[in-house]
Amino acid sequence: MALLTRITGPRDLDQLSQEELVTLAEEIRTFLIDSISKTGGHLGPNLGVVELTIALHRVFDSPADRILWDTGHQSYVHKLLTGRQDFSRLRSAGGLSGYPSQAESEHDVIENSHASTVLGWADGLSKANQLHGRDDHVVAVTGDGALTGGMAWEAMNNIAGAKDRPLVIVVNDNERSYSPTIGGLANHLATLRTTDGYEKFLALGKEVLNRTPVVGKPLHDALHGAKKGLKDFIAPQGMFEDLGLKYVGPIDGHDIEALESALQRARRFGGPVIVHCLTEKGRGYRPAREDEADQFHAVGVIHPDTGLPVAAAGADWTSVFGDEIVRIGRERRDVVAITAAMLRPVGLKEFADEFPERVFDVGIAEQHGAVSAAGLAAGGLHPVFAVYATFLNRAFDQLLMDVALHKLGVTFVLDRAGVTGPDGASHHGMWDMSILQCVPGLRLAAPRDAEQLRLQLREAVDVKDAPTVVRYSKGAVGPSVPSVGTVGGMDVLRAPQEGTDRPDVLLLSVGALAPMCLETAELLGRQGLSCTVVDPRWVKPVDPELPGLAARHRLVVTVEDNSRVGGVGSTVAQALRDAEVDVPVRDFGIPPQFLDHGSRKDVMAAIGLTAPDIAREVTGHVARLDGSLDTARA
Amino acid sequence: MALLTRITGPRDLDQLSQEELVTLAEEIRTFLIDSISKTGGHLGPNLGVVELTIALHRVFDSPADRILWDTGHQSYVHKLLTGRQDFSRLRSAGGLSGYPSQAESEHDVIENSHASTVLGWADGLSKANQLHGRDDHVVAVTGDGALTGGMAWEAMNNIAGAKDRPLVIVVNDNERSYSPTIGGLANHLATLRTTDGYEKFLALGKEVLNRTPVVGKPLHDALHGAKKGLKDFIAPQGMFEDLGLKYVGPIDGHDIEALESALQRARRFGGPVIVHCLTEKGRGYRPAREDEADQFHAVGVIHPDTGLPVAAAGADWTSVFGDEIVRIGRERRDVVAITAAMLRPVGLKEFADEFPERVFDVGIAEQHGAVSAAGLAAGGLHPVFAVYATFLNRAFDQLLMDVALHKLGVTFVLDRAGVTGPDGASHHGMWDMSILQCVPGLRLAAPRDAEQLRLQLREAVDVKDAPTVVRYSKGAVGPSVPSVGTVGGMDVLRAPQEGTDRPDVLLLSVGALAPMCLETAELLGRQGLSCTVVDPRWVKPVDPELPGLAARHRLVVTVEDNSRVGGVGSTVAQALRDAEVDVPVRDFGIPPQFLDHGSRKDVMAAIGLTAPDIAREVTGHVARLDGSLDTARA
Repeated sequence: MALLTRITGPRDLDQLSQEELVTLAEEIRTFLIDSISKTGGHLGPNLGVVELTIALHRVFDSPADRILWDTGHQSYVHKLLTGRQDFSRLRSAGGLSGYPSQAESEHDVIENSHASTVLGWADGLSKANQLHGRDDHVVAVTGDGALTGGMAWEAMNNIAGAKDRPLVIVVNDNERSYSPTIGGLANHLATLRTTDGYEKFLALGKEVLNRTPVVGKPLHDALHGAKKGLKDFIAPQGMFEDLGLKYVGPIDGHDIEALESALQRARRFGGPVIVHCLTEKGRGYRPAREDEADQFHAVGVIHPDTGLPVAAAGADWTSVFGDEIVRIGRERRDVVAITAAMLRPVGLKEFADEFPERVFDVGIAEQHGAVSAAGLAAGGLHPVFAVYATFLNRAFDQLLMDVALHKLGVTFVLDRAGVTGPDGASHHGMWDMSILQCVPGLRLAAPRDAEQLRLQLREAVDVKDAPTVVRYSKGAVGPSVPSVGTVGGMDVLRAPQEGTDRPDVLLLSVGALAPMCLETAELLGRQGLSCTVVDPRWVKPVDPELPGLAARHRLVVTVEDNSRVGGVGSTVAQALRDAEVDVPVRDFGIPPQFLDHGSRKDVMAAIGLTAPDIAREVTGHVARLDGSLDTARA
Repeated sequence: MALLTRITGPRDLDQLSQEELVTLAEEIRTFLIDSISKTGGHLGPNLGVVELTIALHRVFDSPADRILWDTGHQSYVHKLLTGRQDFSRLRSAGGLSGYPSQAESEHDVIENSHASTVLGWADGLSKANQLHGRDDHVVAVTGDGALTGGMAWEAMNNIAGAKDRPLVIVVNDNERSYSPTIGGLANHLATLRTTDGYEKFLALGKEVLNRTPVVGKPLHDALHGAKKGLKDFIAPQGMFEDLGLKYVGPIDGHDIEALESALQRARRFGGPVIVHCLTEKGRGYRPAREDEADQFHAVGVIHPDTGLPVAAAGADWTSVFGDEIVRIGRERRDVVAITAAMLRPVGLKEFADEFPERVFDVGIAEQHGAVSAAGLAAGGLHPVFAVYATFLNRAFDQLLMDVALHKLGVTFVLDRAGVTGPDGASHHGMWDMSILQCVPGLRLAAPRDAEQLRLQLREAVDVKDAPTVVRYSKGAVGPSVPSVGTVGGMDVLRAPQEGTDRPDVLLLSVGALAPMCLETAELLGRQGLSCTVVDPRWVKPVDPELPGLAARHRLVVTVEDNSRVGGVGSTVAQALRDAEVDVPVRDFGIPPQFLDHGSRKDVMAAIGLTAPDIAREVTGHVARLDGSLDTARA
């Protein structure tokens, strides 16, 4: 690491020869494999952009020129070149973020990990530069997958007319985004091949190639090798030209000198220009290149030589869903599945294998996932759209206006709900139970264990006239939590001791927090407080029996791993007000702030979502209720 | 109306000759002008699609074939041809909806008026047809403006690969959507003209034209007339071909025979195909054609001959904003404005006239409006994005993840918030105060009158490190409502009589509901209840003085014209819980349901948001509080 350790900032690159840059790239790759295998992280994407990142920082002068990363998980090399080389606590509390972070460096801008945003940011930043009379460059790095998102199209429309704004769009085309079977752009490209237009583009592509000095292995593959490479090569270029954008490429994304030359040309152009780079995800790491599925897109802790996980995880929520939806699919031919470019991560691989014609990968396009689900449902099918909870934000309007308004039976399965951990602020699934409460007719389930997930998924797909939502956590599913009784549709997980006239606390536990809530009840019991624990199962609508149950307690406590603002606690409190049950309510959840990265456990502790914290707070509340009662008596 | 009155369903069109169809079109135009001038409604768009709608219903067999309308306000002719000819109560309670409505007819599908959805619906419906083995057609009618929305791009990507699905996309190209200065597609098209590619497209366009038998006036204009027509003609075709979609056109959208011929060709094709029609918005109505701004896109009650409004409205919220933002713009050069293709409707026309370089029309692209605002703010400007409240739903993720997470000073001005009236379920701005509550750091103002709107808009643009929102109603702004004092940042609008020890009710009034709340207080006073009325001005965050003020009352009542689920009432109740102020709260707002069209007054009455209704409810609550107190005393 002789060269790497000497780089304290981008301008240190200026002194290096092309040979040294190649050595630096090797050092960075070794560093990444060694380091990420210890901490986990986005290995494949970063191995793919080593040379590109070096070239970007050689040609552009960050931070005066702004280098923006779409989705952000490919910014590790950028971090290494901008003074951040301690990766030992990557994505852990107090360590480096797995995404750009303004708190870490003046070289970082976009912290948000939701895809397809970078061109919009670039449009805004370059407009600001223009109004300020600055001629600094804005450089937007986006993957080919992110171009399937509607935001990219909206931004392209706005950028295309801006002839005089120096704006460089680098398309990091690694032939795939998360998954090789993406519907959106891939389908579109496949079609191009079958139309007359394709021949024209092919000819054009060959011509460009002849004019392009760089003919590396990827280009050879593209023109003479697999058909897949071929269409990847042809189509983006056609698309960009049609948008009226100046086009440079395609460039071998692992040839620093070629990249620098292309980026210099783009820099000199002075207006919006596309630089199309062909890269290999997982480049230089055999286990990643051999992983057909996603080239080690994101990994946990692995052995650096073999790429095999060091610790095998138990059953996780995703695979329970993946198994049950296949069973449902066998029983019900009308059930179809939708994913937004995340077939495997959301657990739909087995469903796709068994029912290939009944799964739709729409690209990184959550809006289309939801609106096309409305169309599918209107056509007599029952779509199940499996998506990360945080990404559902993108489809809120479609869920509300296209699905709910039309009273259509569509099931949204929200994976990675609640505190997720190392991916940080934009990956926590902490918004869904707030923004969905106001959707008329929608039913929302938060299963507490694997058995409930299977059961409630079935209940959800049985609803024909309204959107249903099933939300669950990231990672390993805990042990089964049995119920000891029911009240209405709610499961009682713990009843107070026999003979307790009016128990102190009704503790309402949401989803996977059931074990923590039972522990809280245990701790409260040791303080002499009697406690009922219920799992509402369906948190929306509020069970009609809840107000009556609440009225038989002195205090209602709700616990959820969602923003406490507008979440289940708020909705329960409103249901009690509407029933004129004025039992005090105390609601626990995620405070109204963005959460940093860190392990789920660390984050939960930092925000006081632990059994001891909640028990202590509740004990205080009850004591003060007693106090105010004493005051009233006095 | 000899022919029109004989049409009871689409198949009645089969008997008519081409000459009779032309007569029918004339009758329909006369009917529309006569009828809409009495009721108000979307006149221009419907005058533009008379012949197109006739041809669609001649060629396709609705409802087996599904005819889908994007945005839906151009479906009046469709209604006339599918058995709905009583337009006397159009958009009034109990009368015809101004949009398609499944309750009205089996010929209607999409009721939602948010733009750019139709291709997504069509994708889903045609996938369902395919899985069911049905070969019925799905026909999607979209405007050129709606193609600037990202959803259209996402859907195109998904449709392009579907070779074997019979799906006809009719592009109703009227040269403009709401406003002639749209940034998005228009900018893009303008750029095409300046690139090499344009010549190619031009040649291609001419070739297509030569192969096309129909050369009407619009085509002549397009090729030989204004440059505007020229690029409109060329560019969409280029775009569609690049997407690999079969293309038919351009067709004179006012020649029924030509339209039928083109649609028949498209119908026989069997796969996805674009039919590109050139129409004139406001066709056949001189006042509309002469209206450069938006060709009578939507009108109130007008005189049918002159097109002049029958009753002039007073100052409205929009124009107050429009005036004040110009004043602010003169004082602060860093303030820039954004609109999503609605420059005039949101009141930015004067700002654009005075500061043309500081206004950005992004197209029908709310996502881009918000994300580019983040970029502008990161570049040191203060963007003001003026948008209808209901359309902000589209930009929720960008507001949260791009603006709020990055602590950027962006002001969102939400016009048409609350109950809007005749446009129905998808136009009511009743979601914003629910979904925005969970956004960390966001500040939300609901001004009660014109003076407050000016003041709070200035307060909003002074916030540098967080998103701010200013939301106000549709239509005329009421008289000024003075404050009689302040508590913290809240205005007291009415204080209880001197010497009242603990007043009965603290009534918290949100925004334009202040006069209604004062009337409610008056009614409560007649029942012997003492009442304080406060306007919080900023409803988020909750004023820190509110819990203390609430504790000095017996009951807190909140009134808002937003979904009562998760709205201001819920947030206030949570703030009181957090402060352990367990004064009962009763929250009034819009119930969790979609609201039908009707006048604002009718809708408010239907949901019980009137002073007498609220006063009656509150009186009951207080009486029961007394009762429970008596019980406790006994």
